[in-house]
Amino acid sequence: LERVPAITLTTDFGTSDGYAAALKGVLTRLAPGVPLIDIAHDIAPFDKVGALLALRNALKSFPSGCVHLVVVDPGVGSARNGLIVVVAGHTLVGPDNGIVTGVFPLAGMQTYIIEEAGFADASPTFQGRDIFAPIVAKLAAGATPESLGSLLEEPQRLRLPLASRTGNLIKGEIIHVDRFGNLVSNIPRNIVADAARIAVSVNFAPVRSGRTFSDVAPGESVAYWGSAGLLEIGVREGNAGKKLGGRGMPVEVVPFFS
Amino acid sequence: LERVPAITLTTDFGTSDGYAAALKGVLTRLAPGVPLIDIAHDIAPFDKVGALLALRNALKSFPSGCVHLVVVDPGVGSARNGLIVVVAGHTLVGPDNGIVTGVFPLAGMQTYIIEEAGFADASPTFQGRDIFAPIVAKLAAGATPESLGSLLEEPQRLRLPLASRTGNLIKGEIIHVDRFGNLVSNIPRNIVADAARIAVSVNFAPVRSGRTFSDVAPGESVAYWGSAGLLEIGVREGNAGKKLGGRGMPVEVVPFFS
Amino acid sequence: LERVPAITLTTDFGTSDGYAAALKGVLTRLAPGVPLIDIAHDIAPFDKVGALLALRNALKSFPSGCVHLVVVDPGVGSARNGLIVVVAGHTLVGPDNGIVTGVFPLAGMQTYIIEEAGFADASPTFQGRDIFAPIVAKLAAGATPESLGSLLEEPQRLRLPLASRTGNLIKGEIIHVDRFGNLVSNIPRNIVADAARIAVSVNFAPVRSGRTFSDVAPGESVAYWGSAGLLEIGVREGNAGKKLGGRGMPVEVVPFFS
Repeated sequence: LERVPAITLTTDFGTSDGYAAALKGVLTRLAPGVPLIDIAHDIAPFDKVGALLALRNALKSFPSGCVHLVVVDPGVGSARNGLIVVVAGHTLVGPDNGIVTGVFPLAGMQTYIIEEAGFADASPTFQGRDIFAPIVAKLAAGATPESLGSLLEEPQRLRLPLASRTGNLIKGEIIHVDRFGNLVSNIPRNIVADAARIAVSVNFAPVRSGRTFSDVAPGESVAYWGSAGLLEIGVREGNAGKKLGGRGMPVEVVPFFS
Repeated sequence: LERVPAITLTTDFGTSDGYAAALKGVLTRLAPGVPLIDIAHDIAPFDKVGALLALRNALKSFPSGCVHLVVVDPGVGSARNGLIVVVAGHTLVGPDNGIVTGVFPLAGMQTYIIEEAGFADASPTFQGRDIFAPIVAKLAAGATPESLGSLLEEPQRLRLPLASRTGNLIKGEIIHVDRFGNLVSNIPRNIVADAARIAVSVNFAPVRSGRTFSDVAPGESVAYWGSAGLLEIGVREGNAGKKLGGRGMPVEVVPFFS
Repeated sequence: LERVPAITLTTDFGTSDGYAAALKGVLTRLAPGVPLIDIAHDIAPFDKVGALLALRNALKSFPSGCVHLVVVDPGVGSARNGLIVVVAGHTLVGPDNGIVTGVFPLAGMQTYIIEEAGFADASPTFQGRDIFAPIVAKLAAGATPESLGSLLEEPQRLRLPLASRTGNLIKGEIIHVDRFGNLVSNIPRNIVADAARIAVSVNFAPVRSGRTFSDVAPGESVAYWGSAGLLEIGVREGNAGKKLGGRGMPVEVVPFFS
């Protein structure tokens, strides 16, 4: 049996009510000796897009073999399924609401509906503690997904707004504002892979593009390729969200190949 | 010597000042190899009720044998005692202010006043680091409570407001608002154990009762039995605290046994 | 090879974006088995003074042998160096901006510029993940600082405002407001070491001095020596920051030796 390097936890529970800690209690009890790593518990309540982006930023740095408990669940208490997702050497567990299926690329992904005898007996408002955490512990102890559920062909997917391209004009939008106020767009780097440089506008106002913050003066805006491979707009030593606005603002990019 | 599954930490220190991390430093030094689990450090400053509810939500999920450091202490620097509480297989350490004695049922609880030679030398404003964390480390290393203190018959208790019952009318109040805005009342489920259904009002306005959020439409209020066994009022995909109000609001329940 | 007791993490990344978790992923991957301890991720963005004070409060409680990852970095993406600092049995890793060199006293401190082949290839906006975390993992695995960098004689230092003394009058200022609203000054206890008592003013209004909060009535202000050895001003069961003001306020102390 190969050792699980870590179990990670991602919720919108906050920490001050003890709900996230209850998950850690279950895991301490049922998966003793496996390191527990908090990804985030301060995802905005029910913010599936925020959860997905945080997980994309974080999970690819973890080694394969990790098991990831993800409970950001606007549908808590409704009849939706629980999933086990196996992809890229990682295992993710959480409600079937499009988050756990959206973190890694689809290639080779296998998805299972959790089929637990105790599912119906669980507290209807705390399935994280009563269903998902025990499933994570079983997987960490070596249980196979097949023994805990059955294959699902069509899980939910969270469809982020997609950038579009018409001729030489790429249109996208701001999908997230991070802690520093940096604006994260839905425009991926590979869409302009060969461009020598790009012209960028946010909310129809031009923004200088650069490699990083230090390419502009303090207080100035700059568009750059963020660490997640998406176009971001920041303000050097400042807060772009406060200066420019938030989610939903249009972003336009024109690549130059000269 | 049995291994301690984990040491947990609960404070109102926040994390940005390094005070909570100082506790972890002491424990890393004096209890090497024992996993440290954060319950919460963002309990509202001096909020004993909030701390107690968070601990009730969290600690029952941990395995027996754990040692729990709890420092939410409006009386810091005054002459109150420090306690070691042994109950239900768990050990809790913190000031004698009613929190550590209120997490688990009283049956079989044993309470000790900490008697440390170094107590008087400690920094008067940081007893968490200088007294309580070292005591936790000693307990985790196998020291007996008897070797660190003496039995106390009458520790402080935190008396939450009690629900009352007159005939068929149960009167309680909101005692906590959680991160989602869900309103937690002091009305326990067992008070209406046999009821076929209940009628609920909050602040004298009726609220539908249901099993969980999905029993009402998005944006509507619902009263349900929360995972801690208390009546809660939530708004589906919304925030009941913002819609209805906060701590202290009266809650009335009439059970029907037909 | 001696075992590293823990790796600690201090950033201003917050947790909700997954950036801090990415550091933990790298460390889980490259330094398996070493406990990861969060110091703080909610340092105010780019607040070097806040980071330094938090680290001073926290790190001295950790055992020697720990490796500390510190990324609070207003200069991210600019050409500043990365440092490895070895001091007092601890190793700190982070940008050369004065934080990692300011936590422990200077005696015996050795400072190295990180020289990594991959440095230039790293994502210019996420050196924490791509440079600093891997260096921390290598140090935790036993690599010597000499193998990862070259000695630096003049690292950056963060110069906190210094208290001054003219005759019997000590002048300082408030340099930080902690989570409880306690005001932390830059006046160290040793400057008045022999004084029988002190007279204190904040913003030119007198404040009672005492040993701790319980020396004054609830709601009253008190000046006391904090756990970090600096003069602090608090309000018993209240918030001095809201009552008196914040960073930059002048503090004056007159010691009496009678």
